[in-house]
Amino acid sequence: MHAITIPEPGGPEALVWAEVPDPEPGDGEVLVDVAAGAVNRADVLQRQGFYDPPPGASPYPGLECSGRISAVGPGVSGWAVGDEVCALLGGGGYAEKVAVPSGQLLPVPDGMDVTTAAGLPEVVCTVWSNVFMVAHLRPGETLLVHGGSSGIGTMAIQLAKAVGARVAVTAGSAEKLDRCAELGADVLINYREQDFVEEIRSATGGAGADVILDIMGAKYLDRNVKALATNGRLAVIGLQGGNKGELNLGALLAKRGAVTATSLRGRPADEKAAIVAAVREHVWPLLSDGRIRAVIDSTVPMRDAAEAHRSLDASRHIGKILLTTD
Amino acid sequence: MHAITIPEPGGPEALVWAEVPDPEPGDGEVLVDVAAGAVNRADVLQRQGFYDPPPGASPYPGLECSGRISAVGPGVSGWAVGDEVCALLGGGGYAEKVAVPSGQLLPVPDGMDVTTAAGLPEVVCTVWSNVFMVAHLRPGETLLVHGGSSGIGTMAIQLAKAVGARVAVTAGSAEKLDRCAELGADVLINYREQDFVEEIRSATGGAGADVILDIMGAKYLDRNVKALATNGRLAVIGLQGGNKGELNLGALLAKRGAVTATSLRGRPADEKAAIVAAVREHVWPLLSDGRIRAVIDSTVPMRDAAEAHRSLDASRHIGKILLTTD
Repeated sequence: MHAITIPEPGGPEALVWAEVPDPEPGDGEVLVDVAAGAVNRADVLQRQGFYDPPPGASPYPGLECSGRISAVGPGVSGWAVGDEVCALLGGGGYAEKVAVPSGQLLPVPDGMDVTTAAGLPEVVCTVWSNVFMVAHLRPGETLLVHGGSSGIGTMAIQLAKAVGARVAVTAGSAEKLDRCAELGADVLINYREQDFVEEIRSATGGAGADVILDIMGAKYLDRNVKALATNGRLAVIGLQGGNKGELNLGALLAKRGAVTATSLRGRPADEKAAIVAAVREHVWPLLSDGRIRAVIDSTVPMRDAAEAHRSLDASRHIGKILLTTD
Repeated sequence: MHAITIPEPGGPEALVWAEVPDPEPGDGEVLVDVAAGAVNRADVLQRQGFYDPPPGASPYPGLECSGRISAVGPGVSGWAVGDEVCALLGGGGYAEKVAVPSGQLLPVPDGMDVTTAAGLPEVVCTVWSNVFMVAHLRPGETLLVHGGSSGIGTMAIQLAKAVGARVAVTAGSAEKLDRCAELGADVLINYREQDFVEEIRSATGGAGADVILDIMGAKYLDRNVKALATNGRLAVIGLQGGNKGELNLGALLAKRGAVTATSLRGRPADEKAAIVAAVREHVWPLLSDGRIRAVIDSTVPMRDAAEAHRSLDASRHIGKILLTTD
């Protein structure tokens, strides 16, 4: 098969389409003939040499894909050759074939084409596990999403609205904020022109956000704590603004607040399977009846993954960038 | 009645025993004739002028007491004049009488004298709410308690052992560590001589602590994150080592960790009542059958509260210091 390899870490040109050995499905795994992969910020870190795949994962980038099952390994039940699926991966989504633990498979939602489904697993599992399973966003609460127009952001807006929460977003342009509003965002904050702490306070009668989904890490840490409401939960899922930041524990204590930081990729198989099962129960019905949808920025041939990474590096995209094998 | 007043914030001598107006029980409150109050670290901050009582609370220090109900206000059911009780307070425990919301009352446990019960509410509610309701310590997990010989620490050791967890403690002397061991602590760390990160790793096969109950705040923040296990939860309940510290979000994310910070005093009445109800259900049976006990350092006449504060300031105590009215 072919896959995107990274002979030397570096810029987008480090991504090289090359012939590599086919993977074999192990115990509890299926082999998927990939229709499409999707691009995540973590793939950029892997390309740059900062984010090695976890032990046992494919060496190729790509944390999610869609396609058809072409072989079923020992000990798998509930899935068969020919099933159209999408999957959460530890790596290997930038390839024509990938072996996937069966607990990380999801059916393609009713009415969705198999290519589009490639953009679902990572964002849905990340949003559901953080916003709902860790931070317990409840109806009537306010969620602040940083990077509202990203793949993660566009899914977070829709899921939070679907459960009856209020949603505020930050983004860097009026066009991106318009797309967030179309998806249901109630409060639109242009972080280049506005102070999100002031804006979220003003939008909540001074209370602040009950849950914040953050991708900036250190750079936003102090302001995120300021933007939290009493009993507020800050869920950090990205460190685009650095690792180490000052935490005002006095301010956090006065609010009885929580700071959590997670990544999906490093979780063991049983935790991933539990998240996938929860997503299938709670989110898949919303996708199948069209109440929420995958937001796709563009579709690029997988062999041209470098082009997709240039878009991501420039933050030009809204929603997901897909990489197709055909 | 008499109460400890604070005419001018300052050292222990700022605590002045004076005649003041009797409190009146409001809606949903009872009046308690105080047998004993108990000393908490927060009282020292209030004495120093750094911790004003929350709105509506008594102006006098004291976050817990025991005694007998002498009057019942409107809208109270389940409690009667003459009942022996202990109570979680927003303030006013250093006084001969105090008005208490009925949701913050607990019966004196079977077989315990009323004076001793003064040392229970604040520590039991703080430990239960943080270690179990917020951090969800589970059987087989490891809890690290900083300040294991404090009132909070001695209760945390016992409760964690009672649910089948493993307990590590830090303290500043061999004598204090001996007392922690008597209460069931499995791992004893002298913070003056040992590095608690190394010790907890060594005691857990490198894994770290699943839950840390911390009173040091900023000073320990970085080391506490290092000491956490995968999926670990750091519960900060005191800031003796400062407010603002560097948080390594990259390290926290790699562990999928959580940092929470809470105080009991600032919680609204309904949250306090929920904690008190949980404590009555889960902890009171353990106290009544003697499986856990109040650890009392000493008993001092309330008028000499300054002497009790000198002991606390010098960290000479093990367990609770009580202040008796008679």
